[in-house]
Amino acid sequence: MSTNDSTLARRLGKSAEILVRHDSPFNAGPPPEIATASFVTPNDLFFVRNHGDVPEIDPRTFHLTIEGRVKRPFRISLEELRRLPKITLAATLQCAGNRRQELMAAQPIPGELGWGTEAISTAEWSGVPLRDVLAVAEPTAEGRHVELHGLDETERHGHRFTFGGSIPLDKAVRPEVLLAYEMNGQPLLPVHGFPLRAVVPGWIGARSVKWLTRIELRDEPSENYFQAKAYRLFPSHVGMDDVVWETGLMLGEFNLTSVIASPTEGGTLAAGSHVVRGWAYAGERRVERVDLSLDGGRSWLVAELEPERSRWAWRRWEARIDLPSGPTELACRAWDSAAQTQPEHPGQVWNFKGYMNNSWHRVRVNAA
Amino acid sequence: MSTNDSTLARRLGKSAEILVRHDSPFNAGPPPEIATASFVTPNDLFFVRNHGDVPEIDPRTFHLTIEGRVKRPFRISLEELRRLPKITLAATLQCAGNRRQELMAAQPIPGELGWGTEAISTAEWSGVPLRDVLAVAEPTAEGRHVELHGLDETERHGHRFTFGGSIPLDKAVRPEVLLAYEMNGQPLLPVHGFPLRAVVPGWIGARSVKWLTRIELRDEPSENYFQAKAYRLFPSHVGMDDVVWETGLMLGEFNLTSVIASPTEGGTLAAGSHVVRGWAYAGERRVERVDLSLDGGRSWLVAELEPERSRWAWRRWEARIDLPSGPTELACRAWDSAAQTQPEHPGQVWNFKGYMNNSWHRVRVNAA
Repeated sequence: MSTNDSTLARRLGKSAEILVRHDSPFNAGPPPEIATASFVTPNDLFFVRNHGDVPEIDPRTFHLTIEGRVKRPFRISLEELRRLPKITLAATLQCAGNRRQELMAAQPIPGELGWGTEAISTAEWSGVPLRDVLAVAEPTAEGRHVELHGLDETERHGHRFTFGGSIPLDKAVRPEVLLAYEMNGQPLLPVHGFPLRAVVPGWIGARSVKWLTRIELRDEPSENYFQAKAYRLFPSHVGMDDVVWETGLMLGEFNLTSVIASPTEGGTLAAGSHVVRGWAYAGERRVERVDLSLDGGRSWLVAELEPERSRWAWRRWEARIDLPSGPTELACRAWDSAAQTQPEHPGQVWNFKGYMNNSWHRVRVNAA
Repeated sequence: MSTNDSTLARRLGKSAEILVRHDSPFNAGPPPEIATASFVTPNDLFFVRNHGDVPEIDPRTFHLTIEGRVKRPFRISLEELRRLPKITLAATLQCAGNRRQELMAAQPIPGELGWGTEAISTAEWSGVPLRDVLAVAEPTAEGRHVELHGLDETERHGHRFTFGGSIPLDKAVRPEVLLAYEMNGQPLLPVHGFPLRAVVPGWIGARSVKWLTRIELRDEPSENYFQAKAYRLFPSHVGMDDVVWETGLMLGEFNLTSVIASPTEGGTLAAGSHVVRGWAYAGERRVERVDLSLDGGRSWLVAELEPERSRWAWRRWEARIDLPSGPTELACRAWDSAAQTQPEHPGQVWNFKGYMNNSWHRVRVNAA
C-alpha cells in the first residue's frame, strides 16, 4: 500500500494497515494475517466494498421511506427509528467477489476487483428488525420482494443511477434482517452506510444496502443493475460478448467457504510444529467441520472449531501441524450442516464475473 | 431381482419392477430408467427404506400422543386428526444412504445397503401441518427439539428398540412439515407408515418417521440409536474401530445432488443424437442449474430444467447430446440457490457409514 492509500484510508476512518484494492470508489479489507485476530472485526479494519462515492447525509433531515405494494406507506426519521425496540446481532458480511484472485489465476477476469480473501468481516450490528417496519406498512399479497434503495450513485454503461437490490419477503421478515444504525457499538462510519444500512445475514454483501433511503415492496425482484445484471452467476463458457443477463443465477444466499489466514501464501517457516489458523462461513447454514490437508487432499486432519458465537457469523478454526522441510501446499475445506462440502478447484467454479469462489483454499509455504 | 423378490414386492403393494436391495427388512426403489418417468413417483414404485418389520396397526384404536416439554400434553385419534384442516404438498424424500454404491466402489463399506441412485422418490403428501398440533400442545421454553417415535422395532448391537429421531423446533414449526396419512391421494401403504407418518421435506428420510405414535418435546436431540449413533457423518479416516459416535456431524438437511437416470451405466447406444435425462435435488434450497459433461468436466453444457412444480421436490432435467463413437463417460453436477455446486469425486466425500454421497454422478456408455 502506498502512502497515499494510507492517508485516504485514515481519512475514511480506516486503519493504515488495511489492504486497499481500489482508491475511488474505496475498496479495501483487512490483511489475512490479522483478519482472524478477533471474532469481531474492529470498525477500522472491516472490509469496504463501495460502488460509488460516499454520500454526505445530514442525519437531522434524513428519512427512510417505505412504499410500493403496502397498505400503509410511510416515512420515518432516524430519531424515530432509534426509538423503536433495538436489537444487537453479530453477523458476518462477505462480498460475492471475495477470493476472485484465485479465479483470475485460472483465467483472467478483466474489469473486476482482484479480491484476495479479505472481503469478509464480522461486526455486532444494532438496529431495528426490518420486519418490525414492514409490519407497520403491511405488505399486500403482491409485495413479495423488498427492494432496498441506497443514496450512493454509480455509473455503468453510460447510465448514472443509485445502488440497490431486493430480497424476497420471506427472508426480509426473518428476525436476523436489520435496519442497522450502529456497528460494534458505534454509529456507522460514513464509508459503511451512515446513517442507516440494511444488514442481511447469510446473503451476499450487495444486498446489505448502505445509505438506505427507501424500501419498496414489489411483485418482482429489483431491476437495479446490481441485481438484474451484476451479481449473477453464469456457466464458465459464457463471457461478456455472449451473455444474456437475465439467464444468470441471481445471487442471494451464500455458499460454503473456508480460508487459511495464517500462514500466508509464499511464507517461509521453520520445519516442525505450527498452528494453522483460518475461518469458515456457511451463509444461512452452520459450519460443522473444517479439514486441513498437507498432501493435496489425499489425507485430511480435522481442525478445532471455535464454539459458535453467533448463528450468523463465521467460525474461526485452528489446527496444529508438523511441517516437513521443503515446500508444502496447505489446503482447507469445510462441511456445513447439510453435509455439503466445497469443490476442489477454482476452474470448477470459474465464471466471467468472478463471483462465489468457494473452492478449497490453498497456501504454499516453504520450510527450512 | 428373483421371483421371490417380486412376490414379496407385490405382497407389500409394490410393483414387480421395483429393485429390491434387501428382503427383510424390505428395502427397494424404482430402477433408474423409470425413476424420472413422472414427477410424482407412483405408490407402487416409491422407494422403501425400513429398519424393521412392518408393524400391524388397527386404525380404529390408533392414537398419537404429544408430550414432554409441553404445557398441554394430549392424545389424538386418527379420526380426530383427519378432521383437522388438511393440506397437500408435493415433496421428495431421499435416504441419506442414496448413491452409497459409488462410495463402496471407492472403498468397501461393510454392513450397509448398497443403494444405487434409487433411494429417492416424490409424492403428494396429505395431512396436518405438525405445527398445528404443536400449537395446541404449546411447547415450553425447554422444548427445543421434537422427537418422533415410530412403532417399528429393530435390533442393533443386541438391543431391541423402536425407530425414532428428532428435528429442531424451528424446522418442526415450518409449514411444510406434515403429519401425513395420505400419499398420492391414497391412504398410506403399510410399508410407508400406515396409518400415520411424519414428512420432513428437505431433510434426510430417516427423520420422516413412519408408524408415528408419539411426539415428545425435548431440550436435546433424540438419543435414539438412529440419531445418536447412526446417520452421522465422520471424517474419512474414522472407521468402526475408532469411531466416537457423538463427534459425528448429526445429519439433518440434505445437501445438493444430481443424477443421470438415462442412459444407464454400461449401456450401448447408437452414435449420434440422444436425450440424456435425470433429476436434481437441493434439500431446503432450490435447484438452479444442472450441467452435463462428456469430457470428464473439462467442458459442460447446461441442461434444460423442468419448471419448479414444488418448492420441496426434485427437478427433472434433460439435455440433448451428440454422442461420439466409442466409450463416453457422462457426468452431471447441479448448482443450488446459494451458488453451491457438488464435489467431483466419491473419494472426497467417502465416510465409513456411506452417507450423503453428492459427488458428480457418472454414467459410462458405449456408442457403436
